[in-house]
Amino acid sequence: MDLDLVAAVDIGGTKVAAALVDGDGTLLARAQRPTPAREGAERVLAAVTGTLTPLMADERWRRVGAIGIGSAGPVDARTGTVSPVNIPAWRDFPLVAGVRATTGALPVTLLGDGNAIAAGEHWRGAARDHDNALCMVVSTGVGGGLILDGTLHPGPTGNAGHIGHISVDLDGDACPCGGRGCVERIASGTNIARWATAAGWHPPAGAEPTAAAVAADARTGHPVARAAFARSARALAAGIAATATLVELDVVVVGGGVSQAGEVLFTPLREALHTYATLPYVRGIEVLPAQLGTDAGLVGAAAVCRRGADTFLTPGQAGN
Amino acid sequence: MDLDLVAAVDIGGTKVAAALVDGDGTLLARAQRPTPAREGAERVLAAVTGTLTPLMADERWRRVGAIGIGSAGPVDARTGTVSPVNIPAWRDFPLVAGVRATTGALPVTLLGDGNAIAAGEHWRGAARDHDNALCMVVSTGVGGGLILDGTLHPGPTGNAGHIGHISVDLDGDACPCGGRGCVERIASGTNIARWATAAGWHPPAGAEPTAAAVAADARTGHPVARAAFARSARALAAGIAATATLVELDVVVVGGGVSQAGEVLFTPLREALHTYATLPYVRGIEVLPAQLGTDAGLVGAAAVCRRGADTFLTPGQAGN
Repeated sequence: MDLDLVAAVDIGGTKVAAALVDGDGTLLARAQRPTPAREGAERVLAAVTGTLTPLMADERWRRVGAIGIGSAGPVDARTGTVSPVNIPAWRDFPLVAGVRATTGALPVTLLGDGNAIAAGEHWRGAARDHDNALCMVVSTGVGGGLILDGTLHPGPTGNAGHIGHISVDLDGDACPCGGRGCVERIASGTNIARWATAAGWHPPAGAEPTAAAVAADARTGHPVARAAFARSARALAAGIAATATLVELDVVVVGGGVSQAGEVLFTPLREALHTYATLPYVRGIEVLPAQLGTDAGLVGAAAVCRRGADTFLTPGQAGN
Repeated sequence: MDLDLVAAVDIGGTKVAAALVDGDGTLLARAQRPTPAREGAERVLAAVTGTLTPLMADERWRRVGAIGIGSAGPVDARTGTVSPVNIPAWRDFPLVAGVRATTGALPVTLLGDGNAIAAGEHWRGAARDHDNALCMVVSTGVGGGLILDGTLHPGPTGNAGHIGHISVDLDGDACPCGGRGCVERIASGTNIARWATAAGWHPPAGAEPTAAAVAADARTGHPVARAAFARSARALAAGIAATATLVELDVVVVGGGVSQAGEVLFTPLREALHTYATLPYVRGIEVLPAQLGTDAGLVGAAAVCRRGADTFLTPGQAGN
């Protein structure tokens, strides 16, 4: 029997998902649990293995040739450890060893969640036909990953493409990462809602002050709500332009909850790119909405294992 | 006879240099001319071919297997054309065809000058033992190139790594490139001298208000001169940290006239990196002075040809 499936795992601050993924990127089986992000290290690991055990009970588990993990970062692909900002109990936590204790000797690939999403959108999503792409998520945080010369560029530790924590305002507000004026500190959903509220915007009675509520008001022309998205868009544009200037990009794929605002975000983003993406080789950059939604990380975690397909998709090598 | 030499050309806004470069990166013969940057397109090309003709008269020219050109940018490696900001007559100028008209059918590789310098420092300079490096020049302008996974990453057009034109201050001063708050607009030698002068600094009687003069005063403790370098260093640090966050870097190699200021620049630069390079995988980044000086571009233009060594260093293929 061919080892034609990958068991993919996507670890975020609110949920852990796992799936059996076939050679077309289709999720054949799926399991999900809340992330007990404020609990102890072993409890969080138990949530991860808890998504894998039902898949291991599936008769198709025999066809699994590798395990791919995309985790909230930072991660360290060299050591198989993770230190996710929003999972405090995991600091240099040996995630790969912890998963292996459950799944046995299958080869495990670890990378940051932004890289997993980029690999997914490149394999089966909006970046499919592009050799040089930044795929980003704009949500409560801002993250991303890079496709360069037709392949994922995770960097030695698996964290490359982390556009949320580059500074576009060197005298800007302090960011929880320790820096100043980071893209995330300005552009994330949390910061859109925070800025709008500080500028006098209020959510509808009884509603929470979320970026989605700001987007709804921006759509009806509320000036503060529109300004909040324009501000986010400028920070994203400066970060995207910086990335394109540094590595050369054809497209930027934008997903995540804030991107659900649609043209409320994309129109000012494309406008702001005219300000910051000025050099001839950068001007033509295209902005596309992501296609894979919340499955991107699972599809991408499978995709990166398939890069090494020749080295694991034969039974004799599965234990190597 | 082996085709073991490369004819390297380095085209800048003030001078054009060419050299015969051997397999060790040694310059065996060298020619140089001023760039007639304000004259017509053919006059500028004549300066380039004028550096090549004395090399072609050298008996060792028979051993030349390829021509490597590093040019002031932007360039377009796909079309063999260049549009250097500081050579106005060259816009989409067919440089590769122009050089070939003189040198015949030898294969020609074109890339931006920042990339040539990075390739040079990686092959024979300060980035020699590093797989992931940003090599930058801080001079009248600011440029750079990237080494990723052990090899140059020029991007499809040969311009990648152009750190001078990423924005680190999205509401900052307008940059001649059309953007705002670019690293170069804050950190270049020109802008160090401009800022110091505007803040009340004066050069010694009879001297020009250059970054070197600011550096000399900074060395003796002049507060405005020191502040001018600190400001430049912060913009450089924000740009370097952004680059490291996006692609993962081991080292940053800094050369160019402004780097001659030594610790006047490097001390505040290393300090400012603590502010902006905050994520765990970025914190360890090392800053090193460049080693090759003004020859870096020639050595690097030769290096990129040697990447394709198997395809040209045999006599039968020289005409391909």
